[in-house]
Amino acid sequence: MTELTYSFQQNTVTLDLAKKMLEKAEEKGKELGMKFAISIVDKAGNLKAFSAMDGAPVLALEIAQNKAFSAAAYNRATHEWYDRLKDDPPLMEGLVHTNRLVIFGGGYPIQLNGECIGGIGVSGGHYTHDMQVCEAALELLAETVKEA
Amino acid sequence: MTELTYSFQQNTVTLDLAKKMLEKAEEKGKELGMKFAISIVDKAGNLKAFSAMDGAPVLALEIAQNKAFSAAAYNRATHEWYDRLKDDPPLMEGLVHTNRLVIFGGGYPIQLNGECIGGIGVSGGHYTHDMQVCEAALELLAETVKEA
Amino acid sequence: MTELTYSFQQNTVTLDLAKKMLEKAEEKGKELGMKFAISIVDKAGNLKAFSAMDGAPVLALEIAQNKAFSAAAYNRATHEWYDRLKDDPPLMEGLVHTNRLVIFGGGYPIQLNGECIGGIGVSGGHYTHDMQVCEAALELLAETVKEA
Amino acid sequence: MTELTYSFQQNTVTLDLAKKMLEKAEEKGKELGMKFAISIVDKAGNLKAFSAMDGAPVLALEIAQNKAFSAAAYNRATHEWYDRLKDDPPLMEGLVHTNRLVIFGGGYPIQLNGECIGGIGVSGGHYTHDMQVCEAALELLAETVKEA
Repeated sequence: MTELTYSFQQNTVTLDLAKKMLEKAEEKGKELGMKFAISIVDKAGNLKAFSAMDGAPVLALEIAQNKAFSAAAYNRATHEWYDRLKDDPPLMEGLVHTNRLVIFGGGYPIQLNGECIGGIGVSGGHYTHDMQVCEAALELLAETVKEA
Repeated sequence: MTELTYSFQQNTVTLDLAKKMLEKAEEKGKELGMKFAISIVDKAGNLKAFSAMDGAPVLALEIAQNKAFSAAAYNRATHEWYDRLKDDPPLMEGLVHTNRLVIFGGGYPIQLNGECIGGIGVSGGHYTHDMQVCEAALELLAETVKEA
Repeated sequence: MTELTYSFQQNTVTLDLAKKMLEKAEEKGKELGMKFAISIVDKAGNLKAFSAMDGAPVLALEIAQNKAFSAAAYNRATHEWYDRLKDDPPLMEGLVHTNRLVIFGGGYPIQLNGECIGGIGVSGGHYTHDMQVCEAALELLAETVKEA
Repeated sequence: MTELTYSFQQNTVTLDLAKKMLEKAEEKGKELGMKFAISIVDKAGNLKAFSAMDGAPVLALEIAQNKAFSAAAYNRATHEWYDRLKDDPPLMEGLVHTNRLVIFGGGYPIQLNGECIGGIGVSGGHYTHDMQVCEAALELLAETVKEA
């Protein structure tokens, strides 16, 4: 008469979607005339797919990965952190030291039907550029879902 | 005629208490409708017991452990740090870089008769939520001690 | 006319199951008269639940976690590695240096209907003892599934 | 009259080539019916492009990256290390501890006209499978160069 539930399901981004998002991000990067590193992680924050555009700054390689991790690991876009921290001094001084957490723009959760299935992180320009690149990749998801 | 003392005793949280605290914390988590990671460490700061509620953010797993460590390692609740740092610039700029030290709410020492026997750390919501979850777990300790 | 699949599902161990496995493991530990650390990780290898029996060796705390990680991260019991490595010198000399990989007994994947949904790792005795503790916990899964 | 040379050129793999190699590797992976993580690094050993096939073991994610790094960082296929180490005890016991160095198969330098321009690393199966996946990706390079 056990009523124990053994497992629960988590949806996570496919490699197919991840690669299409990379493509769109790279296109946007070329359009902006800058070189970006782009990282996709799965639901659990593990690396799924990655591209460094030719000439992308070495510094961007890890930041892009950390942004994608941050976004998936808390289901929150990285640029949303600052507004939540700025009037909350203990968090502002403390949370920023969290391992791999990025609190400036360029990381977004990948959401399907309102559920987080992974994260995308971009680095290479100012974070406002990085955000545009992410958004271009996420548009594809929105469009594709609309078609379905 | 030195009177060398060879050893001293340290009281440290039992697994029985730790598990009861986890239960109470999880109950409070459900009541709040959020998913938390909850960590208990012993007197020495080592992991004693841990639960991640189903769907708890990946980011919370390490933060919860670091909060419990911080609390036990200095016998101070993590939310008490900020007020002590804010007017002491060298500490404010410097101490926050200490490995594993968390300076915002959600970590409490577990105290028995005024003595620190371990720490509890919770992460998953805003730290005000995390603190409520800790406090629910610590109430059990107070009640039990009262009864005795 | 897109035929892109956006996400795929992964089943991962619930906290309810994880905690019942910890209980069974602790019972077996008491029966053996030894003190174990017991770790459960989810499908992605992230910490789900943990208990250190009172007096468990400090060394066991990390090993138990690494065994659980190893088992979930490759869907293979840790004691199965050695036979696969022993006549394969490059692996024997090389693979053992993999971060967090344990190649001796005491880590098992948690499998439901043939699918890996997490891992359990135990440390504290000789690995033959650690294996008995894991097996006691996994029996619960087998029994419970039979009942269902 | 010193003739100081100010800089020298390094050829490094393009993202275009890296992505085509990933595609070929994934095709080979599907043919083998296994799930691999595939990593491409540039001449400097930095991550250039990465894919984790759906269901690839978590353990493979880091190993694939380390294999690619190892191969590019010394311009040597990872499976070539063991034969060079086995009769040289100080190296055999010592070198294997080098951070990120993998000494079993599944990592190859990417060479263009005899020059190392990057590395590819694959993990997910036995290293003999991983090697086949790498070789499939490297064939593309051979073919392309032949055509040119």
